Amino acid sequence: GSENAEKAVKWGKSELEKLHLDRVWLQPVKVPHWVRGEKERAYFISNGKKNEVHIAAHGGSVATPGTGLKAKIIEVKGIEGLKKLNREQVAGKIVFFNEPMDPTLIETCPAYGKAVRQRVSGATEASKLGAVGVVVRSVSLRIDTVPHTGTMRYGDIPESQYIPATAISTADADILSKALKSDPDTEFYFKQNCKNLPEVQSYNVIGEIRGSEFPDQIIVVGGHLDSWDTGTGAHDDGAGIVQSMDVIRLLRKAGIRPKRTLRVVLFMNEEFGLDGGKKYAEVARTKDEKHFFALESDSGGFTPRGFSVDCANEQFRSFEQWKPLFEPYRIHFFERGGSGADIGPLKDGKVVLAGLRPDSQRYFDYHHAASDTFDKVNKRELELGAAAMASLIYLVDKYGF
Amino acid sequence: GSENAEKAVKWGKSELEKLHLDRVWLQPVKVPHWVRGEKERAYFISNGKKNEVHIAAHGGSVATPGTGLKAKIIEVKGIEGLKKLNREQVAGKIVFFNEPMDPTLIETCPAYGKAVRQRVSGATEASKLGAVGVVVRSVSLRIDTVPHTGTMRYGDIPESQYIPATAISTADADILSKALKSDPDTEFYFKQNCKNLPEVQSYNVIGEIRGSEFPDQIIVVGGHLDSWDTGTGAHDDGAGIVQSMDVIRLLRKAGIRPKRTLRVVLFMNEEFGLDGGKKYAEVARTKDEKHFFALESDSGGFTPRGFSVDCANEQFRSFEQWKPLFEPYRIHFFERGGSGADIGPLKDGKVVLAGLRPDSQRYFDYHHAASDTFDKVNKRELELGAAAMASLIYLVDKYGF
Repeated sequence: GSENAEKAVKWGKSELEKLHLDRVWLQPVKVPHWVRGEKERAYFISNGKKNEVHIAAHGGSVATPGTGLKAKIIEVKGIEGLKKLNREQVAGKIVFFNEPMDPTLIETCPAYGKAVRQRVSGATEASKLGAVGVVVRSVSLRIDTVPHTGTMRYGDIPESQYIPATAISTADADILSKALKSDPDTEFYFKQNCKNLPEVQSYNVIGEIRGSEFPDQIIVVGGHLDSWDTGTGAHDDGAGIVQSMDVIRLLRKAGIRPKRTLRVVLFMNEEFGLDGGKKYAEVARTKDEKHFFALESDSGGFTPRGFSVDCANEQFRSFEQWKPLFEPYRIHFFERGGSGADIGPLKDGKVVLAGLRPDSQRYFDYHHAASDTFDKVNKRELELGAAAMASLIYLVDKYGF
Repeated sequence: GSENAEKAVKWGKSELEKLHLDRVWLQPVKVPHWVRGEKERAYFISNGKKNEVHIAAHGGSVATPGTGLKAKIIEVKGIEGLKKLNREQVAGKIVFFNEPMDPTLIETCPAYGKAVRQRVSGATEASKLGAVGVVVRSVSLRIDTVPHTGTMRYGDIPESQYIPATAISTADADILSKALKSDPDTEFYFKQNCKNLPEVQSYNVIGEIRGSEFPDQIIVVGGHLDSWDTGTGAHDDGAGIVQSMDVIRLLRKAGIRPKRTLRVVLFMNEEFGLDGGKKYAEVARTKDEKHFFALESDSGGFTPRGFSVDCANEQFRSFEQWKPLFEPYRIHFFERGGSGADIGPLKDGKVVLAGLRPDSQRYFDYHHAASDTFDKVNKRELELGAAAMASLIYLVDKYGF
């Protein structure tokens, strides 16, 4: 709902128009409008010593009182850790969720999936036990002083019980944890100034090449146009946006006109409610559009390794046949699994959904943080991802399943 | 031959001593001592306008005259491009070798292998046609203002015909090329202050765990301790050095005592003559040591993909049997091919040589440049490489070939 999101819509439309598609349009989507306000401040006092730390309010959180919030802080390891405590131990305190991403998992996404639960639901669960705020270890494998924000939800607790939730950088989380071991009476102070404003009109940005043989069968390629406000969203999901547009450029350069209708969709607001993805699927259903295939890139612009495909057994056989075509480039890890958040709502038992799977080591180093900037993107890695996507779309369009 | 190389020897020895090996020693190696001197300066004058550019003398180059060297400059595409010209066209000029690394090759090493020839032999070939100096496009796929140095050789031309050779950054090379198109009379000026000093005593740093069953069969794991002077050599080859040492730590942590003798070798001066590798092999031959296997990491600390193995057919069968063990981690690309520069001189028709093969996209972005610094290394990617190396050494030690 920010001014920058509005700029992204205009930029996306103008970029798609440069691609000389058959049609470019904006699809209206209502989105929430949460603002961070003035930069957060936080410190803790341990053994009489004050230590400043780096925090960033979680998206959707309420603010602290205007003078900030100060209370004793108690450390737990994730939601499971909290569940071992009772109301007496938690009431009146700030809960410090300090479950790190599991570094022993080689693929980082499952490690993220587990650790992120304390960010999403930590405030709700802590509030139920009378906590006054939550401080959550940034969901990142990198140890640095950059906090990683992200969405959180209050679930079904009454609004009067909403407590402020904030991300603390991994380096500060380690320091705080150490301090708590030497002084269990450590107090934590933070002040955040975020606010929920009324909903805003925004848009998915869509471009289309009409299919030459089967115009009613739609292939979608996309990513999401929004990013968290602290960084520029270069990997999450600037990479997916430019790769999706690049698919069009590459097919055109190769002289290929798709048989099926090919749509580039730049989805709005994946990060804070998936409104764009839901709206796109809703409109598709209303218009009775037949979606044949959808491909998303939302795992960063790193060296591609393959695709994750969400489909039936017999459809997956086609992907397995194409594997050898990708093997020379080592992009042939085709696995059954999830696809992408934005295309997920299209799922209807017929459409085939897929997600680009790049090397996952560095994604969460920058994800949702101020450090997710253009200099972290390697041009060749980004281009290889786009080329892999274009190749897969070419095959799906040409041969079907 | 620099003071920093001497420090690296001391640091390497002290780190190996911390690993509680059976023996740590220094193996004397004589190395050349070339110094860059005061930072280089360069500009070109095109259409009456002066443009400063970023250069770095190639290792082994002679200096320009004290007041610098100024001459007309003529662009060629690599050594092949030069060979199309005659003495009349080249004499008295500076030759600008501007062959880029081929960006269409997905693996970057072959692209490097082709483009680097103009750096190594460009000065010699240009001098034969009467050129007064050479300016060589940095052998990198990244477009930026950081020049990439590297070794060059004068071959068998007489010393009186040695001409100064320098690397120009890729961004500046593009600007210079454009300027030459609009003004063929463009003049180039550069001043470099490098010098060859007398040879210096240096060392390979070696640590050893004696094999419990076959102490006479030696397994080597290593990288090179030297780096070019402009950067800190974080990827080339700090990564290989710490990974090689980490192999020892990982095996010990897993409670594994090798059956064969395991040596960590930190080779000196790979970059400017391969003296350490040659000396190590020479001593091994003199002592009639039986080398069973050698593994090098010198392709950067990026996500590992597999190993390149230099061996006979029947030995490669063992590697193929082990592939499935690496497949879950996607480090199972085992291919016949080269290994590593430092272990190359061990080749005798019996020893099996291998090199770690990480993702190659970013290596030449930093290679031999001031930008090859620690912040470019991702901890997890580096650790995965070390773990892959430790796993392979465990298998080779336990099962042989």
